Amino acid sequence: MPFNQYFNGDILPIDSPVFKTNDLGLLRGFGLFDYFRTYNGVPFRWDDYWQRFENSARLLKLPLPVSQKETEKILADLYAMSGEQEVAFRFLLTGGYAPDSVNVVQPNFVIRTESLPQDNPAGRLKGIKVLPYEYVRDLAEVKTTNYVHMVLMADEMRSQQASDLLFHKDGEVSELTRSNIFIFSGDKLITSNRNILNGITRKVVMELAKPHFEIEVRPVAYKEVITADEVFTTSTTKWVMPVVHIGNLLVQNGLAGKRTLYLQELFEKVVADWGK
Amino acid sequence: MPFNQYFNGDILPIDSPVFKTNDLGLLRGFGLFDYFRTYNGVPFRWDDYWQRFENSARLLKLPLPVSQKETEKILADLYAMSGEQEVAFRFLLTGGYAPDSVNVVQPNFVIRTESLPQDNPAGRLKGIKVLPYEYVRDLAEVKTTNYVHMVLMADEMRSQQASDLLFHKDGEVSELTRSNIFIFSGDKLITSNRNILNGITRKVVMELAKPHFEIEVRPVAYKEVITADEVFTTSTTKWVMPVVHIGNLLVQNGLAGKRTLYLQELFEKVVADWGK
Repeated sequence: MPFNQYFNGDILPIDSPVFKTNDLGLLRGFGLFDYFRTYNGVPFRWDDYWQRFENSARLLKLPLPVSQKETEKILADLYAMSGEQEVAFRFLLTGGYAPDSVNVVQPNFVIRTESLPQDNPAGRLKGIKVLPYEYVRDLAEVKTTNYVHMVLMADEMRSQQASDLLFHKDGEVSELTRSNIFIFSGDKLITSNRNILNGITRKVVMELAKPHFEIEVRPVAYKEVITADEVFTTSTTKWVMPVVHIGNLLVQNGLAGKRTLYLQELFEKVVADWGK
Repeated sequence: MPFNQYFNGDILPIDSPVFKTNDLGLLRGFGLFDYFRTYNGVPFRWDDYWQRFENSARLLKLPLPVSQKETEKILADLYAMSGEQEVAFRFLLTGGYAPDSVNVVQPNFVIRTESLPQDNPAGRLKGIKVLPYEYVRDLAEVKTTNYVHMVLMADEMRSQQASDLLFHKDGEVSELTRSNIFIFSGDKLITSNRNILNGITRKVVMELAKPHFEIEVRPVAYKEVITADEVFTTSTTKWVMPVVHIGNLLVQNGLAGKRTLYLQELFEKVVADWGK
């Protein structure tokens, strides 16, 4: 896998050391990212991901060093160089090198080519376990690099055979560490609308669900989640993933819900045909 | 200034690009740091800073790649190479390179040699302005790299001629972005005890104040701060810095308080004699 990365105008091997140590991403956690993948060699929902990336940058007041068109060209080059059928791309925009370790002068911009994360076909059929975790992301609508709690809890998740954390605070759920949450109450599909990152997969799933289900986008109580008929989570890597365990509680009978599996099927059709 | 840095066993010029782009500090904001300086060429309160660094690492579950003794040797080398009378040292310990962008394998450890930050002698005499800011640091007792709000507010601070943010939440103050807060109510010295990073300068100032003032270490209400007789903040770079403006409010008559200036004098004596 001769993967490469783009760094401030250059294409370099993925393992090249490129960051000086006074980058604000390193020193101050001042950075944002985005992550998406190809299907049939074509970046999925590219306009949506780019728009979200632009939005994150605007909210952190970081000027974008490249246009969408220029970035498309870079992605095409990185894809061609990879020799792979499918790749994932990770954008990383940091506050750049700061002589005073506080003020932004010029952001650093990286595009990493990555292999696809390991699929979890068993999880998609049988569902996953998540651990409830009292926390709400700071600046939730910005895809900042702040994932300290996720990294900190990685061992604990492994030991409890859980795949993710379910963030809740003051009785309200927001999202998982890197994915959005949906519940079904009968045929009503409900998803939280605040303290969340606006997922692109979430958006696609709502488009797909619209002809079939009533959709409510509003604050969701933790209590609603643990008593829901079905629970699932959506992300670039998880697609439509049933959640069947919340801590030690089973969601209903602990099996993936039929409406969830139906949405999963619709989503799988979209990505199977993407770019064709 | 031929400043150098230590990176995982090597000594390199300070400007060398050393970090690969899949470091968890960059990708996930998973990192911690510490910062201290020399007086008369001798690191100030080294044991205290080292202990705090160890504590941060323990709380983020990052193994320390070097012992205190080994680090002392590195500091001595970096100092000698600098050719300067005084330097500052910045430690940075990150989650290291993560093939899966989540799990810690082996931390990366940097020690940067830096020139002393610009002194602010005017501020020490006349006091500074701070902006009240509703926020409380996450994992406050860990010196994590998460300073997103500080960087985000840098322009606003400049435009309001303010030097820092005063964090408060639910009517309680915690700290400034990088320094602790003290108030005087008459001869009583009061400082917050929760949601704070335990400052080494804070510790020294309390030692110095003990023979002269009654000290209360407890939660401090925002209201107490704006009605205090004197307010000051302490840090490695600020020493004992009077705070005379909080947003548009003056602290009393807007002049540095006499008790504050007395503690400042005591502190200046300690650092003037350090290592002698």
